[in-house]
Amino acid sequence: MKKFAVILSGCGVYDGAEIHEAVMTLYAIAKEGAEYQIFAPDIDQHHVINHYSGKEMNEKRNVLIESARIARGKIKPLSKFNQKDFDALIMPGGFGVAKNLSDFAFKGADCSVNEELKNALLEMYKNKKPIGALCISPAIVAKVIQGATVTIGTDKETAKAIEKMGGKNEITNNGEVIVDKNNKIYTTPCYMLDATIVDIANGALNVVKAMIDDM
Amino acid sequence: MKKFAVILSGCGVYDGAEIHEAVMTLYAIAKEGAEYQIFAPDIDQHHVINHYSGKEMNEKRNVLIESARIARGKIKPLSKFNQKDFDALIMPGGFGVAKNLSDFAFKGADCSVNEELKNALLEMYKNKKPIGALCISPAIVAKVIQGATVTIGTDKETAKAIEKMGGKNEITNNGEVIVDKNNKIYTTPCYMLDATIVDIANGALNVVKAMIDDM
Repeated sequence: MKKFAVILSGCGVYDGAEIHEAVMTLYAIAKEGAEYQIFAPDIDQHHVINHYSGKEMNEKRNVLIESARIARGKIKPLSKFNQKDFDALIMPGGFGVAKNLSDFAFKGADCSVNEELKNALLEMYKNKKPIGALCISPAIVAKVIQGATVTIGTDKETAKAIEKMGGKNEITNNGEVIVDKNNKIYTTPCYMLDATIVDIANGALNVVKAMIDDM
Repeated sequence: MKKFAVILSGCGVYDGAEIHEAVMTLYAIAKEGAEYQIFAPDIDQHHVINHYSGKEMNEKRNVLIESARIARGKIKPLSKFNQKDFDALIMPGGFGVAKNLSDFAFKGADCSVNEELKNALLEMYKNKKPIGALCISPAIVAKVIQGATVTIGTDKETAKAIEKMGGKNEITNNGEVIVDKNNKIYTTPCYMLDATIVDIANGALNVVKAMIDDM
């Protein structure tokens, strides 16, 4: 059975992992007959957003602990990740990717990426194992793996940042996957576009299928 | 377009709405060509559970605000629910149903149910509109609607409580739906059984399809 590592960044689109994308990624992996282990870094979130009002809350939350909500407790700290245990790695999106796993939301192309995530991505890349990324996550992949071709949909500002980081952005519509065969990188735009939950399910399924075909 | 009201109870299986069940319910509704509005009561959670350690945290969280994470902000307080706007109502599961929307987790058959939820269920029932419930939620439906036939899977203790409340439990396997035609109640066990995320998707889809057939 092929095994995916799934990297989460919290629990909620505005300060963590986008929940629909995360759940649809897990669903796609299981539906395609593969299995998964979920990881998240044991670090504080950048901040906590009230998802009803959109305002910041005076609270502290931990990325691993909140990600565990999506994982139903079955999650490991990202520090325990070892590429030998996995055939592929995939990252759903959400602002947590750009606020917790990196500071891309604040620094754009000049961002830095969480060291554990950076190492995980580079280890997979060096060992020629497929990397998948949804929504805003492709920008982080482009930062870590020089010369990557990815998609974040149609957003011009993010596309520019990707080019500045040495990557290339391909424009896509809902559910489409960009395959960078040389680098084994698979990306799909999800909620970077105006999308429905059905679009998210299709995008997650398409990207997971393309990755499995490459194993 | 048929419209579902979806009632959430927080965000996370141990103290709120079960996230996979909630997302798969939204997905099933959209996939079947219907639309949804999400609701949750504007009340404090019973408690906050660290989903990584399983232990209680010294925090307060609000059911509406946390449910908004699953809803991506598109949610209304349950006080604003009006049966006239909807063709059906559905409740995913999670301990939030038994701890926040009721005290079934603590009092079993002697539980009381959140007044707003009780009214919403009774209004749908009186107007002969389908009610769907996943996981532990069927127990709450059985408490509110006397004589309901439901399923919570195979759990004997919960089945006994349902009978004590005047309902009837039918034993089911993963993905199966129990239809109470007279009362227009549709239930499926989901994570009340040992289930995979694919089972949850199937259960949610089957229950939503059965409800749509009855509209």
